[in-house]
Amino acid sequence: MSKAIDTRDVLGALTDVLEARKAADPDSSYVASLHHKGLNKILEKVGEECTEMLLAAKDAQQTGNADELVYETADLWFHSLVALSHMGLGPDDVLRELARRFDLSGLEEKAARKSQS
Amino acid sequence: MSKAIDTRDVLGALTDVLEARKAADPDSSYVASLHHKGLNKILEKVGEECTEMLLAAKDAQQTGNADELVYETADLWFHSLVALSHMGLGPDDVLRELARRFDLSGLEEKAARKSQS
Amino acid sequence: MSKAIDTRDVLGALTDVLEARKAADPDSSYVASLHHKGLNKILEKVGEECTEMLLAAKDAQQTGNADELVYETADLWFHSLVALSHMGLGPDDVLRELARRFDLSGLEEKAARKSQS
Amino acid sequence: MSKAIDTRDVLGALTDVLEARKAADPDSSYVASLHHKGLNKILEKVGEECTEMLLAAKDAQQTGNADELVYETADLWFHSLVALSHMGLGPDDVLRELARRFDLSGLEEKAARKSQS
Repeated sequence: MSKAIDTRDVLGALTDVLEARKAADPDSSYVASLHHKGLNKILEKVGEECTEMLLAAKDAQQTGNADELVYETADLWFHSLVALSHMGLGPDDVLRELARRFDLSGLEEKAARKSQS
Repeated sequence: MSKAIDTRDVLGALTDVLEARKAADPDSSYVASLHHKGLNKILEKVGEECTEMLLAAKDAQQTGNADELVYETADLWFHSLVALSHMGLGPDDVLRELARRFDLSGLEEKAARKSQS
Repeated sequence: MSKAIDTRDVLGALTDVLEARKAADPDSSYVASLHHKGLNKILEKVGEECTEMLLAAKDAQQTGNADELVYETADLWFHSLVALSHMGLGPDDVLRELARRFDLSGLEEKAARKSQS
Repeated sequence: MSKAIDTRDVLGALTDVLEARKAADPDSSYVASLHHKGLNKILEKVGEECTEMLLAAKDAQQTGNADELVYETADLWFHSLVALSHMGLGPDDVLRELARRFDLSGLEEKAARKSQS
């Protein structure tokens, strides 16, 4: 049995976690505390993590070590998911927009046909 | 035949598009032109789209219309994927970090067991 | 006759320019065009210039050349002055807050007494 | 004796304070602690305060109360001055660039001639 993570499901699983924590006790859950503090506090975190991602990318370019860049990008995506959740949205809304823009549904249909043949 | 998009595959399909365009003619591809201009230009776009996402979230809170927020978050994620790609990374690196942080592999294993039973 | 700029007056002189251009033809003045496009467009520029300042600071640390950092900080301050102007404020509002916070009026009174003695 | 602040001198006085604190004990001075933590930490603060300024501007537009906007812009300018100081620069470098760009030296020369006549 593989321990490999199916990354295709991570955003879905994370969304379930985020929705569950939305209603949790603000004293016991970081996500709940963000929702409790409100949209501005969540957006401040998004801006903060974006800055840290930019600095990590510059450092990665310099040192060749990209661990911090991965870590900060995860922080940025995570807090943007909290912002979406706060507004009643989820990653699927964004992914549908990206698919629409790049005509990825077409790509996937082709891929699906290929795997069926 | 469903026309629904399987959003689980969008980041993977988008990554394929991004990698293919990385080597394209900078005059014919926006992604190729970003890579050609270099990391700073890509990071400028990440910062720009983050600002636009914050403003769209504030406007969505005011107007109740979140279309622009979805659109700008898509722009933010897209340009952060271009930044990752420029550094030899992809969404799976970020999703693995998110899964590790939230122990989502465990969640998925549980989900897998449930769907098998 | 000195060609040196009295930097103490620059923000004041710049404010006069900004106020004069606020009412100018949007087709002939960059400042007027920003006001015409509205607060979001002005704030997008502030966020954009902040990102460029951060990247320029990282590059200055690397190369030892800080010309770009000075240039981008000027851009950041300039666009934050346009944002203030759009909201009916000016640099004096910010400078008074900074003076209050650091008790600089006291410092200046001391400096004034010293120069008189 | 007037208690009014001559805002023309605030950036100069603040720069003196910043330079004095640069060499202070990091445990007793916020500015010294920022320099001690290094450029990334200072730039993170610049990005953070920029985000807070943008949000405050949006709120000011909504509520008509601009106190927070003034406060956050002061924070942004303050931390950008710390960044400049960390790189061996000061506000005069930025003000000279702004004066050059807007030909404010000319404006000031005219103002000087007028006050002499």
